[in-house]
Parts: sequence; C-alpha cells; structure tokens
Amino acid sequence: MADYDKRLQEMGIILPPAAAPVANYVGYTVSGNLVFVSGQLPFADGKVAVQGRVGAGLTVDDGYRAGRLCALNLLAHLRAACGGSLNKVTRVLRLGGFVCVAPDFVDAPKCVNGASDLMVEVFGDAGRHARFAVGVATLPANAAVEVDATFEIKP
Amino acid sequence: MADYDKRLQEMGIILPPAAAPVANYVGYTVSGNLVFVSGQLPFADGKVAVQGRVGAGLTVDDGYRAGRLCALNLLAHLRAACGGSLNKVTRVLRLGGFVCVAPDFVDAPKCVNGASDLMVEVFGDAGRHARFAVGVATLPANAAVEVDATFEIKP
Amino acid sequence: MADYDKRLQEMGIILPPAAAPVANYVGYTVSGNLVFVSGQLPFADGKVAVQGRVGAGLTVDDGYRAGRLCALNLLAHLRAACGGSLNKVTRVLRLGGFVCVAPDFVDAPKCVNGASDLMVEVFGDAGRHARFAVGVATLPANAAVEVDATFEIKP
Repeated sequence: MADYDKRLQEMGIILPPAAAPVANYVGYTVSGNLVFVSGQLPFADGKVAVQGRVGAGLTVDDGYRAGRLCALNLLAHLRAACGGSLNKVTRVLRLGGFVCVAPDFVDAPKCVNGASDLMVEVFGDAGRHARFAVGVATLPANAAVEVDATFEIKP
Repeated sequence: MADYDKRLQEMGIILPPAAAPVANYVGYTVSGNLVFVSGQLPFADGKVAVQGRVGAGLTVDDGYRAGRLCALNLLAHLRAACGGSLNKVTRVLRLGGFVCVAPDFVDAPKCVNGASDLMVEVFGDAGRHARFAVGVATLPANAAVEVDATFEIKP
Repeated sequence: MADYDKRLQEMGIILPPAAAPVANYVGYTVSGNLVFVSGQLPFADGKVAVQGRVGAGLTVDDGYRAGRLCALNLLAHLRAACGGSLNKVTRVLRLGGFVCVAPDFVDAPKCVNGASDLMVEVFGDAGRHARFAVGVATLPANAAVEVDATFEIKP
C-alpha cells in the first residue's frame, strides 16, 4: 500500500496548517467517500505569497509556483479531513483552477499545472485528476491563483 | 431532529418560486444522496434584483445582498429536490461563488458571504460548507453574483 | 432501454477522439457511479475551432457552436469512461460553462446552451442537467468556451 505520508516526508514537504476560514464556511466537507475542499489561495507562512495578475507583472513561473502552493494548502485540508493521514486517500478526482490573468494571457493551464504536478508527485497515478483551468478577472486577496478540489477517500 | 422548514418560517423567510429554466437544463439534479443545484442569480420578485459590477457602481453591501438572494433561490430548488421539505437536508456540501467585479475589486468572498451566512442561519452547523469565491468578467442578465451548490440529503 | 450510441449514429455524429491531456491530469475520473470530465475546449479536427471573445469579434452563434463542440468532446471522454458505450449513462448531472466575453456581454447562457442542447438531443430527459454559465477573462488556447461536466453512470 502506498504510504503518502512518508512520500511527503521524503519530498521534504511540510504541509502548512489547515487554517480555518474566518467566515461561515469551512475548509472541507465530507459526504460518503467524497471530500470537497474549499478553494485555496497560494498561502505560505501565513500570507498570500503570490499576488497579482499573470501576464501583467507576474510570469508563468510565478503562476506555476502559486498553483503549487494552492495544492499544498489543499493537501493540508485533505489530511485534516482524513483525520491526520493522507493514506486514506484513494484518488484525486477533480481540481478547479482559477488564474487571475491579463486580458491577453491564455495560458492558465500552465499555472494550474503547479497544482496538478504536485498531486501526481505525492499520489502517483492516484493523483491524476479531471480538472478545468480558466482565467478570471480577480481573486480574493489579490491572489494569482485559486484551486479547489474533490477527492475520494476510504470510507 | 432539526426542523429547517420551521426555522425558515421563524426567520420570516418565504422562499421564491423554484423557477424552471427556459433552456435545456433544469434547476437541480439528484444522484444518490447528492443534489446539484444550478447556478442561481439574485432573483427577487421575478427579476434580477442586483445588477452591475461590484467595485464599480455596486458596493460590497450590494454584493452581500446579491449573495443572500442567490442562496434563497438555491434553497427554493433544494426544497423542490426534496419533495417540498428542507428537513431531508443533511449537509450543505459546497458553494461555488462567482462575483461580477471591477478589475481592482478583490473582495469576492465578502459578497459570497451573503450566501454562506444564510446557509448557516438556516441549517446551523449542517450549513457549513466548502466553497470557492472568484471575481469574473460578466454574469448572466448583468447579475452581480451567481452561486451554485451541492447538497447532501437523506436517501 | 435507450440506445444512445445508436442515437448518436442517427444524428450523424462521429465523436472526436478522447485526446489525452499533455500534462499531469486526465480526461476523466470515476468514483462509484460518478464521472468527472475535465473542462473541454471547442476542439474539432485536432485544433481549437472557435477562438476569441464573444461580444467582441465573435457572435452568440459562434459561442453556441463552441458550446456544442465542447459537449462533443465531453461525450468522447464520457464514452471512454464507460468503456466504449454511452449506454451506461444514466444522467447528465451538471455542466460548468465558462465563456470568454467582452466586458459588456452578459449572454453567456446562450453560448452554453450549445452544450446543453446537445446533451438533451443525445440523452433526452436523462440529458437535462444542473449547470452554471459565467463570463470569464480568458480561456486556454484563446478558446471561446470551456465546459466541464459530471455524469452519472451504471456502476
């Protein structure tokens, strides 16, 4: 059986805290073996680490890094949903990727790849997911990327 | 057992009619104990009550009010999906919040809070949900906010 | 029992190939009887056939055509998820419609109708779905429309 907790450790990744939202929503909900995780921003060290607009000030590399940070925060909530271990995860089902873009920037997928790649690095084939990637007008706290997710876990 | 129908009544809320879409889609679908409700606009009294762009003409308060109206329309469809009573609802799983924004307005969450707050007012802890909130270029009928939702109900 | 494969044939529709994404995500994932299909662009003959912004260069008719092409690509992946036959499909649960729009174009639903109509033409009442339709800043590869979907299939 895959040991995803160990893989994280081997990758040298320490997940950020699964910060509780300050409003009337939560980091995740669970229904049967589905986990819905709220849209995550590229938080690192307690602040939004990649702010701005990709294609106007920010590069694709910035956007990719933002996508990866979103994914780390998704995993933090997912681990909390699993009671502390990612080893209950059976599949990354779906990512929804929103990128704050300049009007002529049509490479949102290259930014969301930061999230997709991390999922596969951690979960291997079980990390391959359905997804969408779109360019939006603005994101909360001037974040460059926001990604939400649906996971399948053992019941 | 929670009586959500009664709580609505005590809150003085009369849900709007669950208006059937005029195109080839429907207000909701059900699969097992999951209910998927279509994206709702801030309809009140048969028209889109909050139109325009938050941060350019509309304020955060307008956006919040729009979010709340979207949520009322979500509940109308959810109640129809439940055969007329919200007491079959076991959890609000997920809200997807889209706000029509000015290019520098990064507070979409404050608008979507209008929907999130209503869910918790009606369902209590069962109303706490995963969500995303993003700022988009335009919404149907010039609406300020659109919110879709996934709910869990008793089978 | 409905024969959706035959209906496609009678409609003269040959689905495009279910092209594998070139990044770390996949065309679809399956969990129980749910199928999540990745956001599809209006691909035809191996290229994005409808590029640009609806309301600025592109008309509603262009957008509708793009929506229909997205739906054909969704069905291609859905059929692959079903092992080659659409007859395992029991319901189209949900479409998520993103339209690349001019700042004053508020008719995204008319474009997404291209996808909704195809679902009902193919699946009849089982094709009626929940959906959202929003106008976004940009889409991948300058596509005019992107649509993702959730389907219910026989286990």
